[in-house]
Amino acid sequence: MVQASIVTIGDEILIGQVLDTNSSHLARALEETGIHVARMLSIGDNGTEIESTLLGELSRCRVVITTGGLGPTKDDITKAVLARISGSTGYVEHPGQLEMVHRILRNRGLDVLPINLAQAQVPDKAEVIVNQLGTAPIMVFRGLAGGSTLYALPGVPHEAVGAIPAILEDLRAHQALSRIVHRNVMVYGIAESALSEKIAPWEDALPADMHLAYLPNTLTGIRLRLSSYAGGEDVEARLDAQLDSLAALLGPLMYAREDTDLESAVGRILKENGKTLSCAESCTGGEIAHLITSVAGSSAYFLGSVTSYAVSVKEQVLGVPAQTVETFGVVSSQVAAAMAQGVRALTGSDYAVATTGLAGPSGDASNPVGTVWIAAAGPQGTRTVKYVYKHDRKRNIERFAASALHFLWEMLVEDLMH
Amino acid sequence: MVQASIVTIGDEILIGQVLDTNSSHLARALEETGIHVARMLSIGDNGTEIESTLLGELSRCRVVITTGGLGPTKDDITKAVLARISGSTGYVEHPGQLEMVHRILRNRGLDVLPINLAQAQVPDKAEVIVNQLGTAPIMVFRGLAGGSTLYALPGVPHEAVGAIPAILEDLRAHQALSRIVHRNVMVYGIAESALSEKIAPWEDALPADMHLAYLPNTLTGIRLRLSSYAGGEDVEARLDAQLDSLAALLGPLMYAREDTDLESAVGRILKENGKTLSCAESCTGGEIAHLITSVAGSSAYFLGSVTSYAVSVKEQVLGVPAQTVETFGVVSSQVAAAMAQGVRALTGSDYAVATTGLAGPSGDASNPVGTVWIAAAGPQGTRTVKYVYKHDRKRNIERFAASALHFLWEMLVEDLMH
Repeated sequence: MVQASIVTIGDEILIGQVLDTNSSHLARALEETGIHVARMLSIGDNGTEIESTLLGELSRCRVVITTGGLGPTKDDITKAVLARISGSTGYVEHPGQLEMVHRILRNRGLDVLPINLAQAQVPDKAEVIVNQLGTAPIMVFRGLAGGSTLYALPGVPHEAVGAIPAILEDLRAHQALSRIVHRNVMVYGIAESALSEKIAPWEDALPADMHLAYLPNTLTGIRLRLSSYAGGEDVEARLDAQLDSLAALLGPLMYAREDTDLESAVGRILKENGKTLSCAESCTGGEIAHLITSVAGSSAYFLGSVTSYAVSVKEQVLGVPAQTVETFGVVSSQVAAAMAQGVRALTGSDYAVATTGLAGPSGDASNPVGTVWIAAAGPQGTRTVKYVYKHDRKRNIERFAASALHFLWEMLVEDLMH
Repeated sequence: MVQASIVTIGDEILIGQVLDTNSSHLARALEETGIHVARMLSIGDNGTEIESTLLGELSRCRVVITTGGLGPTKDDITKAVLARISGSTGYVEHPGQLEMVHRILRNRGLDVLPINLAQAQVPDKAEVIVNQLGTAPIMVFRGLAGGSTLYALPGVPHEAVGAIPAILEDLRAHQALSRIVHRNVMVYGIAESALSEKIAPWEDALPADMHLAYLPNTLTGIRLRLSSYAGGEDVEARLDAQLDSLAALLGPLMYAREDTDLESAVGRILKENGKTLSCAESCTGGEIAHLITSVAGSSAYFLGSVTSYAVSVKEQVLGVPAQTVETFGVVSSQVAAAMAQGVRALTGSDYAVATTGLAGPSGDASNPVGTVWIAAAGPQGTRTVKYVYKHDRKRNIERFAASALHFLWEMLVEDLMH
C-alpha cells in the first residue's frame, strides 16, 4: 500500500488556536482511495524546520502532502524550501494562476499588489494545478528523495478541501493503487460493542476480499464501511448483496445505505412525501432545530420550533396543561407528548418531535443528569421513549438531539415508507 | 524557551475519523505556560513507528507529551516501547491507579477483568500521576535522551484534558520557565485587519516586556491576549492599566475583559440584573438558542425561543402582521423587529433578539446570500441592524448568531450597566 504523510505548516495549530481540519479531510479522502496515511505532522513557519521535516517525510513515504505556508505574506519561506529540495534553478510565472489572482482580487474589489502577483511565481520544477478558489497555486513536485511526490496545498480550509479531488486524480494517474470499492451504511441506537456482537456471524462470513470498518460519531451514530479490494465486474453487486443481509439483520437500527446523517435522512423522507415537521425543545435548547436547518433546502419541510426552556412557555405557548406538569413532573413522558402535540397544533405540521430532560450539570429529585424523554407525534398518534446518558452537558445535548431525530425517523419510516 | 512536541498515538486520527482535539488543548495550555510547542505528530499503533518517532522527538525537544495508545486492549505496544526507551527492567503495580481501576469499574457496574488490572502495571522507571477520570495511568519518564521528559497521557478526550493541570504543575516544578502573566479581552464586530489598524498607536506604545496576540474565532470574535514576561510585583497592575486604555479606545467593540464568549457575556448581565431573555430565529434556525442554552445555568434567565422558519409560524405564532411581510419582505428590518417584539410578548421576557435572513445556498431577488436583519427588543424599545456576510451556509449561520448575540449585548449594556 502506498504510504502518505500529511504536513501542516503554520503557527496557528501549534498554539492551539485552530483545529487541524485540513489533515482530517485529506486523511479520509486518501484512506478511501487506498492510500495509507502513516503520519501527520504540524510544524511552524520556520525554514530549517520545514526543510528537515519534509526531507524526513519524503524519505519515509512515497507521498507527502503539505498544507499552509503559502499565503501572500509568508509565501517565501515554504516556496524557497520547495525550490531547494526539488533542485529548481529559479522561479517561473504560471499564466493560469496569474489569471486566477487577477480574477479573484477583482471579484473582491481589491487592487492587485506586487505580493499578490508573486503568488503566481513557482519554482521551475513545480507542476501547477490552478487553485480555483484562491490566489496560491497548488504545486506538485515529482521524483524527490528517489521517487517520492510532494503536493503543496494552500492552508485556507475551503481551498485545501477544494484541492482534494484534483490531488486524488493525480495520485490515481501516477501511483499503482489497487482499486477499492466502498459501501457505507449508517446505524443509530446501539453501542459499538453491542453492534459488533450482533453482526459477528455476518461479519465472520464475509468473503476474504471484503473488510468492515466501524466509524462512530456522537451526532450521526456508527458508520459501517464495507470495502472490497478484489476488483472485478461484479464487486458492486457483491457488496450490495452483503448489505441486503446486513439490513435484514439490523432492521430499523440501520437508517441509511449511504454516508449521511440523521437530519438529512429525516429531511429526505419528509421531502419525498411532501410532509412537514416542527419541534419543541426543552433540554436540547435549539440543537434539533439547528441540525434540521443546517441541511440546505430544509425550508421545504421544516416549519419551525419552540424552545420552551421555562415551564411558562411550555404551558402558554405549547399548551401543555399545568396539571400534567404538576402530576408527572416536567421531565416525563406525558409532558414530552404534550409538547410534541402542542407544537404540531401550533404550527400545523404533519409531524413533530419534542424533548424534555436534564442535560446537566444538575439533576433533580427523580431524574439523574442525562435523562431525556423524547416524543414523536404524527397523524397516526404520539409515542414516547426515555433514555439516560452519562456524559457532560455538551455531549448529553448532542446525544439527546441525535436520539430524538432517530426516534422521529422510525415513525416516519413506519408511516410513510411501508 | 523550553520546546515541546506533542505526539498522538492511534489510527482514528490518521484515517480522518476524529479530529485531534487533545493536541489542541495541550498546545494552548503549554503555550500559555511559556512552553513553545514546536511540533505535533500523529502516528499509528505500531511499535516500530512509535519507538522511532519518540526517540526522534526526545532528541529534538526537552518535553514530549503523548496521548493515546493506552486503552485496555492496546496498552501493550505503547507501554512496551516506553519501558524500552526508559531503560525499565520490568513492570510494577501502582496501588493508587489500581484502586482507581476498581472504583471506576464498580461505578460503571462492570466486572474487573485481568486486562483492566493490567492497566495499573507500569514500567519501573515511570512516575505515576493517578488518572482520576479513567483506568489508564498518566506516566512520567525523566532523563530520557540526555535530559528530556516524556509524559504519557490517555487518549480519551476528557481524560487527556483532565490531566493537563497536573502536567502543567509538574512542568513548572521541573523546568526553568520564565513567569508569564496573561490578560485576555474579547472583541466583536470588527475585522482583524481593521482592529490592528485601530489600535496600532496603543500597540506600538506597549512596554518592551509586553506582547499582544490576535486570536480570532467565528463564534466568539477576536480574543486579544496581552502577555508580560517581565515578572515583578506590579505586572498585573501594569497589564490592567494598559487594558484600561485599550477599553477606552475600543468602546462597545470590547465585550469582556476575560476569556469568554458572547453567550456567557450576555447571560452574565441578565443573571446579575435579574432579567429574562427569549429569541425568535428564522435563518439561524435554533443556533442562537443552542448557544445560549449551552451555558450551564442558563435556565435562570432564558425562557425560550421560537424558530419561525415558515412565514405561517412568523405570522401565527409570533404575530408578525401579514401586511408587514407583504410590504417589506420576510428579510427586512420591520419583520425582524416584529419577530423580536412578538416573542417578547409571547414569552413575557424582558429582552428578546430575532434574526431573519438568507444563510444560503440561494438568495432572493432583493437580498444576496449572507444577508441578515437582526432585531433586539427590550423595555426601552426595539432596534435593528443589517449585515451581509460572504461565507457558506454553515459559517453564515454562525456569523448571524454571533452578531445577534453581540447586538443584544450592546442593548443590555446600555440599559443595565450604565
